[in-house]
Amino acid sequence: MTKVRALVLERQHELALRDIDLPLAVGRGMVKIAIHTVGVCGSDIHYYTHGKIGPFVVNAPMVLGHEAAGTIIEVGEGVSHLKIGDRVCMEPGIPDPNSRAARLGMYNIDPAVTFWATPPVHGVLTAEVVHPANYTFKLPDNVSFAEGAMVEPFAVGMQAAFKAGIKPGDTAVVLGAGPIGTMVAIAALAGGCARVIVADLAQPKLDIAARYQGVIPVNIREQNLVAEVKKLTEDWGADVVFECSGSPHAWKTIMDLPRPGGTIVVVGLPVEPAPFDIATASTKELKIETVFRYAHQYDRAIALFASGRVDLKPLISETFAFEDSIKAFERAVEARSTDVKLQIRVAR
Amino acid sequence: MTKVRALVLERQHELALRDIDLPLAVGRGMVKIAIHTVGVCGSDIHYYTHGKIGPFVVNAPMVLGHEAAGTIIEVGEGVSHLKIGDRVCMEPGIPDPNSRAARLGMYNIDPAVTFWATPPVHGVLTAEVVHPANYTFKLPDNVSFAEGAMVEPFAVGMQAAFKAGIKPGDTAVVLGAGPIGTMVAIAALAGGCARVIVADLAQPKLDIAARYQGVIPVNIREQNLVAEVKKLTEDWGADVVFECSGSPHAWKTIMDLPRPGGTIVVVGLPVEPAPFDIATASTKELKIETVFRYAHQYDRAIALFASGRVDLKPLISETFAFEDSIKAFERAVEARSTDVKLQIRVAR
Amino acid sequence: MTKVRALVLERQHELALRDIDLPLAVGRGMVKIAIHTVGVCGSDIHYYTHGKIGPFVVNAPMVLGHEAAGTIIEVGEGVSHLKIGDRVCMEPGIPDPNSRAARLGMYNIDPAVTFWATPPVHGVLTAEVVHPANYTFKLPDNVSFAEGAMVEPFAVGMQAAFKAGIKPGDTAVVLGAGPIGTMVAIAALAGGCARVIVADLAQPKLDIAARYQGVIPVNIREQNLVAEVKKLTEDWGADVVFECSGSPHAWKTIMDLPRPGGTIVVVGLPVEPAPFDIATASTKELKIETVFRYAHQYDRAIALFASGRVDLKPLISETFAFEDSIKAFERAVEARSTDVKLQIRVAR
Amino acid sequence: MTKVRALVLERQHELALRDIDLPLAVGRGMVKIAIHTVGVCGSDIHYYTHGKIGPFVVNAPMVLGHEAAGTIIEVGEGVSHLKIGDRVCMEPGIPDPNSRAARLGMYNIDPAVTFWATPPVHGVLTAEVVHPANYTFKLPDNVSFAEGAMVEPFAVGMQAAFKAGIKPGDTAVVLGAGPIGTMVAIAALAGGCARVIVADLAQPKLDIAARYQGVIPVNIREQNLVAEVKKLTEDWGADVVFECSGSPHAWKTIMDLPRPGGTIVVVGLPVEPAPFDIATASTKELKIETVFRYAHQYDRAIALFASGRVDLKPLISETFAFEDSIKAFERAVEARSTDVKLQIRVAR
Repeated sequence: MTKVRALVLERQHELALRDIDLPLAVGRGMVKIAIHTVGVCGSDIHYYTHGKIGPFVVNAPMVLGHEAAGTIIEVGEGVSHLKIGDRVCMEPGIPDPNSRAARLGMYNIDPAVTFWATPPVHGVLTAEVVHPANYTFKLPDNVSFAEGAMVEPFAVGMQAAFKAGIKPGDTAVVLGAGPIGTMVAIAALAGGCARVIVADLAQPKLDIAARYQGVIPVNIREQNLVAEVKKLTEDWGADVVFECSGSPHAWKTIMDLPRPGGTIVVVGLPVEPAPFDIATASTKELKIETVFRYAHQYDRAIALFASGRVDLKPLISETFAFEDSIKAFERAVEARSTDVKLQIRVAR
Repeated sequence: MTKVRALVLERQHELALRDIDLPLAVGRGMVKIAIHTVGVCGSDIHYYTHGKIGPFVVNAPMVLGHEAAGTIIEVGEGVSHLKIGDRVCMEPGIPDPNSRAARLGMYNIDPAVTFWATPPVHGVLTAEVVHPANYTFKLPDNVSFAEGAMVEPFAVGMQAAFKAGIKPGDTAVVLGAGPIGTMVAIAALAGGCARVIVADLAQPKLDIAARYQGVIPVNIREQNLVAEVKKLTEDWGADVVFECSGSPHAWKTIMDLPRPGGTIVVVGLPVEPAPFDIATASTKELKIETVFRYAHQYDRAIALFASGRVDLKPLISETFAFEDSIKAFERAVEARSTDVKLQIRVAR
Repeated sequence: MTKVRALVLERQHELALRDIDLPLAVGRGMVKIAIHTVGVCGSDIHYYTHGKIGPFVVNAPMVLGHEAAGTIIEVGEGVSHLKIGDRVCMEPGIPDPNSRAARLGMYNIDPAVTFWATPPVHGVLTAEVVHPANYTFKLPDNVSFAEGAMVEPFAVGMQAAFKAGIKPGDTAVVLGAGPIGTMVAIAALAGGCARVIVADLAQPKLDIAARYQGVIPVNIREQNLVAEVKKLTEDWGADVVFECSGSPHAWKTIMDLPRPGGTIVVVGLPVEPAPFDIATASTKELKIETVFRYAHQYDRAIALFASGRVDLKPLISETFAFEDSIKAFERAVEARSTDVKLQIRVAR
Repeated sequence: MTKVRALVLERQHELALRDIDLPLAVGRGMVKIAIHTVGVCGSDIHYYTHGKIGPFVVNAPMVLGHEAAGTIIEVGEGVSHLKIGDRVCMEPGIPDPNSRAARLGMYNIDPAVTFWATPPVHGVLTAEVVHPANYTFKLPDNVSFAEGAMVEPFAVGMQAAFKAGIKPGDTAVVLGAGPIGTMVAIAALAGGCARVIVADLAQPKLDIAARYQGVIPVNIREQNLVAEVKKLTEDWGADVVFECSGSPHAWKTIMDLPRPGGTIVVVGLPVEPAPFDIATASTKELKIETVFRYAHQYDRAIALFASGRVDLKPLISETFAFEDSIKAFERAVEARSTDVKLQIRVAR
């Protein structure tokens, strides 16, 4: 155990930037990373404000943060693709490679995955972390640490775009223009969509999404989404609909959005079961896909950043110094509609 | 118009075997068929007992019946693959080949499809019918008219099996052992499943399904289905779950049946929206497929009958003469749990 | 029959701009289009220089040209989605919607398709043409006629990208930077690739392709392609390889380019059978896809142009007046390595 | 190291049943199995008769045999799904679960896989072996050891059927009725085919295949295969063609067998590159899949045996006692056309 400075969630509503003991021995197949930048995620905020997410309850002090980039400072035995000094970002989930799901290539849905900043596992708003080399990815020279820390949330969008089975030139609809909806829209465009109709009630969020070429914003306070989609698709409907609002309300009309034979990808998670209009879905033979985090998306996301096909820098709303971490969380709690992603720069 | 004898649903609760005027001119690309055997379908019964199905209301006398086989007696211009004397069965839906859905290969979800015995379109419990040659299929010598009339309901099972994306050796669960559930189970086995766990409350229905090699019956009055599936799959879950009960109740626990990354195929249609447990579905990244009738399944079903890989003769519970058609419907209304399919032999 | 001015290939090596009789009656489901712009395709040139392509021989005078855009000037019965004055582009192939392949959604591989400027069918380097409305596509206001005439060659790239089954963030290789290879590279990027390594011997062609973000040019006169692909993919290989050179030589090393489980899409057609290294392909379980023209790609291509995700204007090297059509063909025969697409403006 | 009796290939042409030192310590995640039955594979014979297969050369004495079933006699730490006394069969390939290919679910094409009886790795024609529990599969009570030893060759057929993407009711062609072709045909039927046309020159082999319902034998010494396939499919062609002959000759006409949009699965490996008729393949947009051993097929194969959907017992031509192992190899070298699989019973 090593004593390091970290942003610790002591309990619901109580954050402290203090020293804590963390295990930092570098075993076989592992690397040690000096953390540079960490993004603040909605789940970090939720643990802070609610002390739990579903069955995951904060019963002991826990380091927050799981969207991270940094620099390799030590390399374990048996690691060949990374070396000291490499700039990297890390997947926060650590699967068991011998589990049945992992062997089938679906390590994200292995029930035994451990995940940073999910009780009782510590996150990485701290100086250093030890991590499996296989889930640590080198950043090309033209991808900054700040962008590296954006790979994690973007991977959620990539997983949704992957599951959508997008065909080149598809038209998509994204319900909800929050950070995840925006990431999904960008991933859907990068993944082959010609255009993505993004629907939300908040105009500032739509304005941010609309900066990306191919996004068609629809403010559902003012416009009827079903009518807009029909107009834009000659009454045919969208090839793919991404539900990112998490609102059960969305399920009342969602079946009117896809074309015959279209796909709905469910990203938002309502707390209660949603009303599934099977009759309408069947008439069009719709397919519904669900997603859980991501698998095998980090290298793909980094490749899109490196080639310039995806630029997420406009989504970084503000960067805080490590000593101002608590301020970053207070700002995040405000939930300004013009904020997409807040980041904390841990490295000096 | 030609006057022919037919089983006519005059209005709800009133059937008559009487003469009726039907259009029997054979146009380009059409064939005329002398009807031999017609199966009685749940929808025929429902129109008889309720006078409507959803938006389809019987407002004028309508000939019933859409599961039919017969013999070609006239061939229109431009038809090359059929000739007089050919024994055939027919798809009851007539799509517009120029519709957008049909051009994409999904003629079943073209909203403009007309379908036999769906108001106001007449069915085929009558002596003769004119039909597009492209939706008329030759029966091999070793496939009887009775089996030919089983192609239609079996095509529903085939479409479900097709949508399931079955991999060789999969384990499936079928919820509901009515005629459609049984067809789905048989199609799933023919389509590559090693075993199909069929669940129902009615033991006689399970006994019929269990005659097919690979079916594992589970009487849910006596056994816990989730526990049985776990036991049979070493806690992993089923690759595919076919929901054929149409009961909203089934949706309360259905997400516990598939394996991580598994598929649910929705065949049964609850009248009200079903409760969709998105959180559980997402944790396993489940996929949900819906089906609407079938497309491109007739030749495949016939090939399975012809090679002996599928034998549906045990499902034909009783055959009535044409003059006893009304008796056939009265028997069907009884809904005996030992009856799967009742047929009417129109030809003398 | 109506007499109209057209660019006629009288026989091999002999072009004439003269009047010719063409059938211009507008039947049910058809539209008449005043041609505005027509691109010159390699096949047009090949008929001019060789008098035939494979089994298709020019035995009678034939109008050339099949990459066309124009304006609707007459609308047949039963057409609802187009009206006089609409700016459109047209698919040059006319399938039989009742053929088996077309009903399955694969109208491009219906052997009975007729195709413009393929003997004995006339092309559209003329004032007017009558065409099925279902294969005529409205151009949005922000897509020019010149771009409309680029939809046809780009659809070839779209079909290749579609068949590749691109996953978001894939790395592709394109062998050959001719017009088709360049279209394929652009379609692959629009269809989800993070980067496309384009290989050719001619630096000017590579320079044109390299204007597109995400293209990595490799001059195989100077660099070892296999080594470059390995370096760029950390020894893993490319997800997709598009063979667009048509050279049997390419088949000697092509299996070294894809990653384990990768895909090769064959676009280029060598005259002789190519040597297929099954042993190497099997060790990686490679998949090989072939393409034939395109199906269902026009609306997708137009959507990508309209949203700005794809811009092909830089590929239009020069535009000729209709009266200079023969000069356009003479220039095309030169095969300048800086020329990608030559167009002829038929409208005044 | 432990001294155990084994069938050792001393060098080309020289077999000995003698004691040899093998490592039999049971590490974490491993199990020790007492071998019961081992099948003789073509590769075992080939090492015996040629001393090598491609780059794999027998430079030191090597135990033969890789198609094995037995009984668990010791269980390592961390193994929960197996216990002493369990009857099992084993995958002969041991992948690295942390390799890139394995993490993607494709452990079979991980270049680092070690494989039994592939120089310098020993096989299992011996009393005991230690193996990873994750690649050791429990046999249900109704699956015998003899059948358990058939899982390995059948898994090759399963992988081919899996890659074929069979749709329920498909028609397939299998070229070559040797042991692998026969396994592929049976797997294709179990995997959803209505019928499989099996082509070979040797009538006894065809007679064995034809015992399976759905197999249509075609003796290509007497019948024209292309003509037969056309006749059986109304000129449309087969949905899937499995090339199992390994003969380059097969590639001259193979493109005439599939339907438009059909698939060719390459199982047989010609030594030299095969002539790939791209022009014909493209006209039909054919897809070509290759296979390398198998991944994730053992549990599926066992499920098909257990449910009775697949019965391979008729393919076990003769069983030899362990002390007669060399006789078994001599018989295998005879290559009788009535022999499919010879097995050796190691257990007393």
